[in-house]
Amino acid sequence: MKAYKDMSKEELLSIKKALEEEYKEAEAKGLKLNMARGKPGESQLALAMPMLDVINSTSDMHTVLGNDTRNYGDLDGIGECRKLMADMMEVEKDNVIVCGNSSLNIMYDTVARSMSFGVNGSTPWCKLDKVKFLCPVPGYDRHFKITELFGIEMINIPLGTDGPDMNMVEQYVNNDEAVKGIWCVPKYSNPTGISYSDEVIKRFANLKPAAEDFRIYWDNAYCIHHLYEDTQDTILNILDECKKAGNPDMVYIFASTSKISFPGSGISAIATSPTNLDYIMKKMTVQTIGHDKINQLRHVRFFKDIDGLKAHMKQHGELLRPKFEAVLNTLEEELDGLEIGSWIKPRGGYFISFDSLPGCAKAIVSMCKDLGVVLTGAGATYPYGQDPLDSNIRIAPSFPTPEEMLAASKIFVLCVKLVSVKKLLEEL
Amino acid sequence: MKAYKDMSKEELLSIKKALEEEYKEAEAKGLKLNMARGKPGESQLALAMPMLDVINSTSDMHTVLGNDTRNYGDLDGIGECRKLMADMMEVEKDNVIVCGNSSLNIMYDTVARSMSFGVNGSTPWCKLDKVKFLCPVPGYDRHFKITELFGIEMINIPLGTDGPDMNMVEQYVNNDEAVKGIWCVPKYSNPTGISYSDEVIKRFANLKPAAEDFRIYWDNAYCIHHLYEDTQDTILNILDECKKAGNPDMVYIFASTSKISFPGSGISAIATSPTNLDYIMKKMTVQTIGHDKINQLRHVRFFKDIDGLKAHMKQHGELLRPKFEAVLNTLEEELDGLEIGSWIKPRGGYFISFDSLPGCAKAIVSMCKDLGVVLTGAGATYPYGQDPLDSNIRIAPSFPTPEEMLAASKIFVLCVKLVSVKKLLEEL
Repeated sequence: MKAYKDMSKEELLSIKKALEEEYKEAEAKGLKLNMARGKPGESQLALAMPMLDVINSTSDMHTVLGNDTRNYGDLDGIGECRKLMADMMEVEKDNVIVCGNSSLNIMYDTVARSMSFGVNGSTPWCKLDKVKFLCPVPGYDRHFKITELFGIEMINIPLGTDGPDMNMVEQYVNNDEAVKGIWCVPKYSNPTGISYSDEVIKRFANLKPAAEDFRIYWDNAYCIHHLYEDTQDTILNILDECKKAGNPDMVYIFASTSKISFPGSGISAIATSPTNLDYIMKKMTVQTIGHDKINQLRHVRFFKDIDGLKAHMKQHGELLRPKFEAVLNTLEEELDGLEIGSWIKPRGGYFISFDSLPGCAKAIVSMCKDLGVVLTGAGATYPYGQDPLDSNIRIAPSFPTPEEMLAASKIFVLCVKLVSVKKLLEEL
Repeated sequence: MKAYKDMSKEELLSIKKALEEEYKEAEAKGLKLNMARGKPGESQLALAMPMLDVINSTSDMHTVLGNDTRNYGDLDGIGECRKLMADMMEVEKDNVIVCGNSSLNIMYDTVARSMSFGVNGSTPWCKLDKVKFLCPVPGYDRHFKITELFGIEMINIPLGTDGPDMNMVEQYVNNDEAVKGIWCVPKYSNPTGISYSDEVIKRFANLKPAAEDFRIYWDNAYCIHHLYEDTQDTILNILDECKKAGNPDMVYIFASTSKISFPGSGISAIATSPTNLDYIMKKMTVQTIGHDKINQLRHVRFFKDIDGLKAHMKQHGELLRPKFEAVLNTLEEELDGLEIGSWIKPRGGYFISFDSLPGCAKAIVSMCKDLGVVLTGAGATYPYGQDPLDSNIRIAPSFPTPEEMLAASKIFVLCVKLVSVKKLLEEL
């Protein structure tokens, strides 16, 4: 196929006309599809329904150690659930606190705690003139919303195919004491789907932060969320690497079962060094008497162990794969060679990231919406909702059926083409 | 019985000798009982076990409005659960957000939010030189721990049999702009068991706070936690009263089902004005994607409505009553007329508050511990753990069996007597 940019005005006008015909037909169909958020689909939720049977009125409600999960106690989570989450996060049980239903809430609390009380004895961030976070972009909008809410200045760091630009990361972290954190989704990154290389992770572990209270916010949201059985990403263990590098306290790891069992009714955990855990527990004991231990027990009794979790996620992968492929195949069939967009084929996670021609993302998202296909707002993948190039669009294929995803993808590529043609014509 | 204070040295010495014999006998028994925390007992937990059957793998997981409780959404809670909690809290559904498993966590978050962001646009408290909270005493130690953690200065307000000393409350709230809140347990107060009178509540509602961001933190933890069917306390609706008085935004009400269904696996809620709710929701939407809606559905399907809740709590009352009576009867039989302690007979809630002779509480708690009976630490019912008179002791009768409570109560009165006799002898 000929690239749009190499076409004459006449060629572009002729394509535009054809696309506008397609647009009218699409409009007439009156689709109503939502690809905005990484919501598991109906078939994925169904996989976890038997979990609701493992705890019932006849169940022994005690932990292996004999604690009654129905009563107060076990602030850091029941032992067997800490073990399960530790195995999933590839750390030791003693590095883990199991919390409530939301890892996002743990991240929020971790930032909020640092604002109010500092980190392990450092000055509370609310007492500082300036606090900065590094934000690999494109990234997860809800991370950025947290730091924005607390008035933390966010600095864009380009995310490549092997991780963030580590020269920039080192430059900032090792020299600017105001830089207190970096948001990372190291595996099957939200939204690009890339995983950090060993070299990148080693460079992370070997940072020499100017700020004693600098921490890496390692949101390993998609740690076992593979799309394929044969080609899976693996990443280095950041906690081990930090320890080896003499930075044992430098990372907080977050994870949850929101996209394994049920969004909203899963369990979440934070993994970090014993020193960090001690500090967190001292504050957490004031915040709550404990998390939902019956739900922790339910998860352990259902999944049993890490093998159970992995077997369950294999089924998720099988359900998600056709949806991802519906998008990826459509992109390839319809856009390959046109040079009006690029994308990465992810091996796991929840998203496909699409980069349009500069200045086109908002228009594409808006046009899709007019045709009944809701995408994540353009710009959402950047701090403050501002994509400097207006080119990144996050596609979330999980919620619709494969058939719906195919229909939505066709609308998407139509909009990409039409917006791009118009843009190129304007620039002639 | 003759009051200890009216006895001669010889009489006291003779009593002391007899008590020391009793002490030795008690020591030999090697009891091991815990009356430290308001933990529901085994028999109470058993009442809620059928709740674990109402949601299973064959259940329709949708709300009345058709939302899937298994997926993201409904940040403010599912409608039918907001209705249930609203009925329990005697407010309208539109005044309620249903949250996670812990009302303490909502209170913590409410204070934390005010520290970081202020209240509905006011200056963040962390930017102020001084923030003060009024603390009716004796009160709930976990309230005081929250304000202590945030460096908020706590001011003791004596709690009478009809509520806090309102002259003092008005004096502080209406004149000191640094006073931003007051912790209240208005019904079956923790630990004294008293309920606020209509007059007290009307005076609360008619406060004229010097600070625009002053709020009443109304922890209605024991709203339907009656011990008796015939003699139940009722309190005025603070939200209505505040509205009538032109202070619609002045109160946050907190409640949970921790002591109705399961501690740690219940649901919690905050009720307040629409203006306050709007502000809270704007922050909460950054903090979490949502709370555990399956557990909300489980609660609604099990309790059905407020009548279901009340019927359930009637059974709780029946189980708790003999435990309370074991303590109260022992206190009456053993201490009446000795003038070495006073207590109030509560009609609901979770505690009995005992006031010893000044300077005796720590020694009594310590002696009980030596005899194997663990009580809440003396001083815990006061801010900073400092009871100026060293006289208040909180007794939590819920967890042991009635027989154990009787045995523990006998130890308790023995220690009260022995410590008091020693104290009086020292003062001769």
